[in-house]
Amino acid sequence: MAPLVLVACSGGADSMALASALAFEAPRLGVRAGGITVDHGLQPGSDLRAAEVVQRMRELGLDPAESVAVTVGREGGPEAAARDARYAALDAAAERHGARAVLLGHTRDDQAETVLLGLARGSGIRSLSGMAAVSGAGGRYRRPFLQLDRQTARKACMVQSLPVWDDPHNTDPSYTRSRLRHEGLPALEKALGKGVVEALARTAQLSRDDADALDAWASRAEAGVRDADGGLECAGLHALPPAVRRRVLRRAAIEAGAPAGSLFARHIEEVDRLITGWRGQGAINLPGKVVARRQGGRLVIRQG
Amino acid sequence: MAPLVLVACSGGADSMALASALAFEAPRLGVRAGGITVDHGLQPGSDLRAAEVVQRMRELGLDPAESVAVTVGREGGPEAAARDARYAALDAAAERHGARAVLLGHTRDDQAETVLLGLARGSGIRSLSGMAAVSGAGGRYRRPFLQLDRQTARKACMVQSLPVWDDPHNTDPSYTRSRLRHEGLPALEKALGKGVVEALARTAQLSRDDADALDAWASRAEAGVRDADGGLECAGLHALPPAVRRRVLRRAAIEAGAPAGSLFARHIEEVDRLITGWRGQGAINLPGKVVARRQGGRLVIRQG
Repeated sequence: MAPLVLVACSGGADSMALASALAFEAPRLGVRAGGITVDHGLQPGSDLRAAEVVQRMRELGLDPAESVAVTVGREGGPEAAARDARYAALDAAAERHGARAVLLGHTRDDQAETVLLGLARGSGIRSLSGMAAVSGAGGRYRRPFLQLDRQTARKACMVQSLPVWDDPHNTDPSYTRSRLRHEGLPALEKALGKGVVEALARTAQLSRDDADALDAWASRAEAGVRDADGGLECAGLHALPPAVRRRVLRRAAIEAGAPAGSLFARHIEEVDRLITGWRGQGAINLPGKVVARRQGGRLVIRQG
Repeated sequence: MAPLVLVACSGGADSMALASALAFEAPRLGVRAGGITVDHGLQPGSDLRAAEVVQRMRELGLDPAESVAVTVGREGGPEAAARDARYAALDAAAERHGARAVLLGHTRDDQAETVLLGLARGSGIRSLSGMAAVSGAGGRYRRPFLQLDRQTARKACMVQSLPVWDDPHNTDPSYTRSRLRHEGLPALEKALGKGVVEALARTAQLSRDDADALDAWASRAEAGVRDADGGLECAGLHALPPAVRRRVLRRAAIEAGAPAGSLFARHIEEVDRLITGWRGQGAINLPGKVVARRQGGRLVIRQG
């Protein structure tokens, strides 16, 4: 049987355009095309809405075309919780149908928003690198519209007379992304010019490549400064560029059990001062009960 | 004689606070404190304004305290031309007085604006790294307020009853930075929260360190792939991470005579395809009459 490619479709313009493009291209590529819509259950009548999207996907010729209901938790805020629930459902659907790939309708505009959200964290270039064109286990998730602007997706729906549905969350000012889309980004464009979205998307790609290269360096460097007992040699760490040394320290803290999400730049900076500003300071407590201490010429990072 | 430190003072709150701080600290540090104000001659009466700033600097005890008139050209737009003229005048004043350092009043807010201006160029992390705390020939320029917010500088002037002057350019909407300050950044803060300025400033520091580390890597990598005739070995280039390879190609193009400011990411990407997407394509023309061509397993980048 031909391999199956699924599209994740909310019924909005971006993913409807993508569903239609997949339906058109699939026979030419020798793949089967299916679609999944996720019912987040966050508005009354969302189940009817999902059924309608399934119907539209069927009309495009997608098979399977189905709706999956999820329960959205609260962890990490409403947007993160909805996203976690959605990807878990898409993962399960992909497994169930043996799909080779799941296509997502993120556009260049979504990418620009993601870069600004990352910028607001101020945690470095990895968080500026936005969404990857290919991600997930085995490269399951693909974002073929990542270099396409939202306007083009909308036009594609219009010229094909595809009915689209605007997710009310997209205009709900209680959502950070929505505020960014409707107020932050337009104001930035007004100040800096129309090319901002494209510049942000290009920044994402460049930052991702830079972050990958620096991570590779840090991984090699870490192996070079580890001693037989798992400690890190301070002299070797000191000789590294600050950007690489901080990444080595971060890796070591995570390996020792510190949760990546709770490990902030200020933690790493404090550990770094055991190397670059050594004046006999005591042990540094890190999240996850991880402790970093200097013992002579060695840095020991471990739990407890 | 004790070494001289100059402050560049526009008469605005940031640089008046800095001038006052320098006047206060200098005797404690055993240095002499002087001040320079640059008269850009862009508004009628700017000479009187400059004389007034000189008077205020004298009242703070700065010696020398002088005004330097410059002629602002047009190259690169009004903001760049004014900046070029200003730094040339400050350089000359520093040389004339034998100053050890020139202090600049840029605050964390200026840094955040600079990062956003760099972001709008979309040309990678070097342009996200904002202003350096120490820059210029021999580290002449110092920015001691780079981690201080503008509000604090204003308060410092207020509590000392220092008269300050607001540069009309700072509120002139025909200036990109002014639009960013009064519209772009506030809208971004409204969407993303109050921490945006701090996050942007932190991004600057992290990006600077990352860019430095990658430049160092590229410099080593370039030496490793250069052959005896000055060509670059394609196999060696291919083995590098994309972020490093692109930097090597950029360096090689600049060494061959391409002006750095006219060399865009798309130029480098095209040259990169001679390595990663080789299908017999012809020579690539770069700015400054530099030509990149593949000759067998070698990449040759040279003028003419």
